[in-house]
Amino acid sequence: MHIAFLGLGNMGSAMVRNLVKNGHRVVAWNRSYEPTKPIHALGVAIERTPADACKDADIAITMLADDGAAEAVTLGKDGLIEGLAEGAVHVSMSTISVALSDKFTEAHAARGQLYAAAPVFGRPEAAEAQKLFIAAAGKPDAIAKITPALESVGQKIFVMGEEPAQANLVKLTGNFLITCVIESLAEAFALTAKGGIETQKVFELLTESLFSAPVYKTYGGLILEGKFSPPGFKMPLGQKDNRLLQQAAEKLEVPLPFAAIIRDRFLAARANGDSELDWSAIAKRAAEDAGFEVK
Amino acid sequence: MHIAFLGLGNMGSAMVRNLVKNGHRVVAWNRSYEPTKPIHALGVAIERTPADACKDADIAITMLADDGAAEAVTLGKDGLIEGLAEGAVHVSMSTISVALSDKFTEAHAARGQLYAAAPVFGRPEAAEAQKLFIAAAGKPDAIAKITPALESVGQKIFVMGEEPAQANLVKLTGNFLITCVIESLAEAFALTAKGGIETQKVFELLTESLFSAPVYKTYGGLILEGKFSPPGFKMPLGQKDNRLLQQAAEKLEVPLPFAAIIRDRFLAARANGDSELDWSAIAKRAAEDAGFEVK
Amino acid sequence: MHIAFLGLGNMGSAMVRNLVKNGHRVVAWNRSYEPTKPIHALGVAIERTPADACKDADIAITMLADDGAAEAVTLGKDGLIEGLAEGAVHVSMSTISVALSDKFTEAHAARGQLYAAAPVFGRPEAAEAQKLFIAAAGKPDAIAKITPALESVGQKIFVMGEEPAQANLVKLTGNFLITCVIESLAEAFALTAKGGIETQKVFELLTESLFSAPVYKTYGGLILEGKFSPPGFKMPLGQKDNRLLQQAAEKLEVPLPFAAIIRDRFLAARANGDSELDWSAIAKRAAEDAGFEVK
Amino acid sequence: MHIAFLGLGNMGSAMVRNLVKNGHRVVAWNRSYEPTKPIHALGVAIERTPADACKDADIAITMLADDGAAEAVTLGKDGLIEGLAEGAVHVSMSTISVALSDKFTEAHAARGQLYAAAPVFGRPEAAEAQKLFIAAAGKPDAIAKITPALESVGQKIFVMGEEPAQANLVKLTGNFLITCVIESLAEAFALTAKGGIETQKVFELLTESLFSAPVYKTYGGLILEGKFSPPGFKMPLGQKDNRLLQQAAEKLEVPLPFAAIIRDRFLAARANGDSELDWSAIAKRAAEDAGFEVK
Repeated sequence: MHIAFLGLGNMGSAMVRNLVKNGHRVVAWNRSYEPTKPIHALGVAIERTPADACKDADIAITMLADDGAAEAVTLGKDGLIEGLAEGAVHVSMSTISVALSDKFTEAHAARGQLYAAAPVFGRPEAAEAQKLFIAAAGKPDAIAKITPALESVGQKIFVMGEEPAQANLVKLTGNFLITCVIESLAEAFALTAKGGIETQKVFELLTESLFSAPVYKTYGGLILEGKFSPPGFKMPLGQKDNRLLQQAAEKLEVPLPFAAIIRDRFLAARANGDSELDWSAIAKRAAEDAGFEVK
Repeated sequence: MHIAFLGLGNMGSAMVRNLVKNGHRVVAWNRSYEPTKPIHALGVAIERTPADACKDADIAITMLADDGAAEAVTLGKDGLIEGLAEGAVHVSMSTISVALSDKFTEAHAARGQLYAAAPVFGRPEAAEAQKLFIAAAGKPDAIAKITPALESVGQKIFVMGEEPAQANLVKLTGNFLITCVIESLAEAFALTAKGGIETQKVFELLTESLFSAPVYKTYGGLILEGKFSPPGFKMPLGQKDNRLLQQAAEKLEVPLPFAAIIRDRFLAARANGDSELDWSAIAKRAAEDAGFEVK
Repeated sequence: MHIAFLGLGNMGSAMVRNLVKNGHRVVAWNRSYEPTKPIHALGVAIERTPADACKDADIAITMLADDGAAEAVTLGKDGLIEGLAEGAVHVSMSTISVALSDKFTEAHAARGQLYAAAPVFGRPEAAEAQKLFIAAAGKPDAIAKITPALESVGQKIFVMGEEPAQANLVKLTGNFLITCVIESLAEAFALTAKGGIETQKVFELLTESLFSAPVYKTYGGLILEGKFSPPGFKMPLGQKDNRLLQQAAEKLEVPLPFAAIIRDRFLAARANGDSELDWSAIAKRAAEDAGFEVK
Repeated sequence: MHIAFLGLGNMGSAMVRNLVKNGHRVVAWNRSYEPTKPIHALGVAIERTPADACKDADIAITMLADDGAAEAVTLGKDGLIEGLAEGAVHVSMSTISVALSDKFTEAHAARGQLYAAAPVFGRPEAAEAQKLFIAAAGKPDAIAKITPALESVGQKIFVMGEEPAQANLVKLTGNFLITCVIESLAEAFALTAKGGIETQKVFELLTESLFSAPVYKTYGGLILEGKFSPPGFKMPLGQKDNRLLQQAAEKLEVPLPFAAIIRDRFLAARANGDSELDWSAIAKRAAEDAGFEVK
């Protein structure tokens, strides 16, 4: 399969390596030059614009930092939409807003192109190991076409519906649930620590009994050790996803009290100098509220 | 080992069966007569008062509904404390308050008796299958004496510290984390349902990827099916544990914003006629706030 | 003084009447024709575009529904900015976002025009009676020029700073405080009503003792009578101001827990069919959560 | 009228002075000796026990620190209830719990004594100036008998119902509304200060327009100046009233989201060393969350 890949960050580069390993023909583009070098060394052609990269591609995958980048690369000058053939599929795999996904749906339909959203769950290590979980949504023909490519980068694909934006909503919801785990553990650790119990013991009890999911182990471990730097997922990105969640919830008229608390945790974290830390550093607020000295 | 067992509810009866199966000599007491019959049929002697049951016991285990029952059985007329020998251990395995556990610590110390707390995580099925997780706390000599008994009813014992009440605090914290899972899933399902996505699909994606812990499967499944009756753990009991958590948090001066939201969910649930349902029915409030008709 | 007035809604029309009464020469514009008729009858010239209306004006006042309208009328085709003379002042008196106010500041500066923000507190009756309270901000020369006009429509002017957007922030903050009064009264009334106390009595006690401010009387009275229709200030407008407040708070990195609760009240109100009611109908949620039947 | 007055703190002493000034015959009791001296100097007889003080009294007024003191003085050894004549009235004027008020109702009824609750709004200065607002509740005959006494200490009496505890509920509700004013102003000031606006100006605008009630002036002024010491009403007392409110709300099954936030503010204040300050110092948390350095 001939795949155009736009966006060679940590996640994107790992995904390209897996696509190549699985026998796909990949043409790539990245805004800056440096990240293209190791990819080019794999035999991947590097093009000068998104439009050029998409010429003749069956599928164009975007994996970009945020809505701004995704919109510029897709709809901007020399953008993906200019180069993609009729009947080819754009699949957006980064975490973008529900609103932008709806906009892409319309723009591609107007050109006779297909569009699907397939955001991923997993950090760069998971991408490297082809272990991503993928939430996909789009019309059945689009999903059918992109499935081989998705299978080359993830361990499991979950199809959520026919509206691409539904996959984006699910992705934002998943990230919301992660923040709920972070906050609830932060409160739990603050309480038990003040009760004189070693947090390590609480962590072990929880993660070896009812809360054995990876997400409790990963984030519980980070909070336990206070290891918020270097960030695996930076504070402002976590905050952005919370904002996109709340925007989607506002449009759908759904109150989310837990998300509201998380929002304020992000704001307090940023106001108190933690913008460069991992998003799990919102856990510092619960400790500080309980009177613990936090760095 | 000679064990006195006080409290033959669903949980307690299952635990007694496992103690007998594992070769312990058990003498039991229960406030009402009916539940003693199947236990007596196992060859367990039934005594008329807690004090009588504790005569000659190495260990006395209490498994009672709430603080009121635990206090009456332990410190009341013909209570456990009257019958238990010096040097023997009382281990409280039900979910009681931190304050009552502290009171027991003092009362037993004054009599030269030992005291430990060892509340359990798990529903009656888990108790039956000897699969309970146990959070234990107490002086090392007390813990050492009760370990064989605990191993006969649970799959894993986590020792939290030397103050018995620390185990109670951890138990309340664990229940708090469960309620956070319930509320966060309720919000997630309300949001995605309003976005037109089948909840079944969201449930599968979550529980087969990052949120694979038993607690997400159990409670996600209950919410998904709206199966809140018959209750596995009744609304007022869940509410009581939230109250005990908040009381402990108040004493320790620890703000818990998520617990505050859960508190109000319990109150709204009770005010709206859901007192007889499973505690996971607090999930109905998020759906109702989002405009869904809930029964 | 020669004043261009753009936007003849209930508030704007009342303000124009007061400007005329106070001897100002007013030229007006409105998007639709109907509301211009009674104003024209006062001897006010009606122009076909905002730009036309602003020709030769010393001051151009905008009083428009929302950011969209304010931006179109100010910066759009044949907009205010096209017609306003160098050195003349645009004063925006409607409730707009901090971000848009910043945008106007720059756009006018680039044209050598002055800009100030002067949003008002008060319902149409107050506008009619020249009783508005005005929060103004802008450079001293701009404030000096507009003061006579502001004095003709309001009872008191409060200058908040030299950045126009500061007045907008204060206006949003004022509306936020009103919503806090609504929510706190809603909770107070739900609690005391369930305690068997007549709400009328609670209302009297509060408003005749510590809470004697107009805002408690006005909103307490509306909640007490459940008189949410016809709306004095419609639900979606209240919700919009909460959104603008939260956007400003996000930019400034300020957590606002009370505002977060209000946000969810607005969402629940809209999700449950109350979009056409007065914004104080968010009070219905507290009653419903307490188990009261609300229409 | 012959009045027994139990509790000579700041509030109680001021009230006794007004009772004497208005011609009542007062007999007093206080737990400690020192405060009785200036009262004795007014010609007030001081008795050795509450029971002794109540002999021959038409009315016994209690004005005590908390539930513990009120219960001991009323129902304890040599308590009020022992000395009060049949048909005489006990009126509890301090802020006590709804539950304790219910207990008093029963206890007095069993003795053929009357009981009313009449908690007051106002600080010691208001008590001194005979400017207290009084929320009273009780059977009509009890209310009729105590009215002359209440009129001698307050400026206005509001009768809430026939159940004494209703007055206590209203008092707790009033204090809750005050904390809502404190928190909402704290958030408002944090936001506008970060927007570069002088808090003094915001305070003036608010208190001279829509928020002209005494409560905004008093508490807004305290927050503005950061003048939290010496305390007018100490943090732990404010926290206690919040706790009693939440207990009453739990019994009545009424969720109170604003009260939940206030609860956590009190806990964070205490955990961060502010227990000796005025209760309005909970305002420091909003400032700290916004990144302001607070002492």
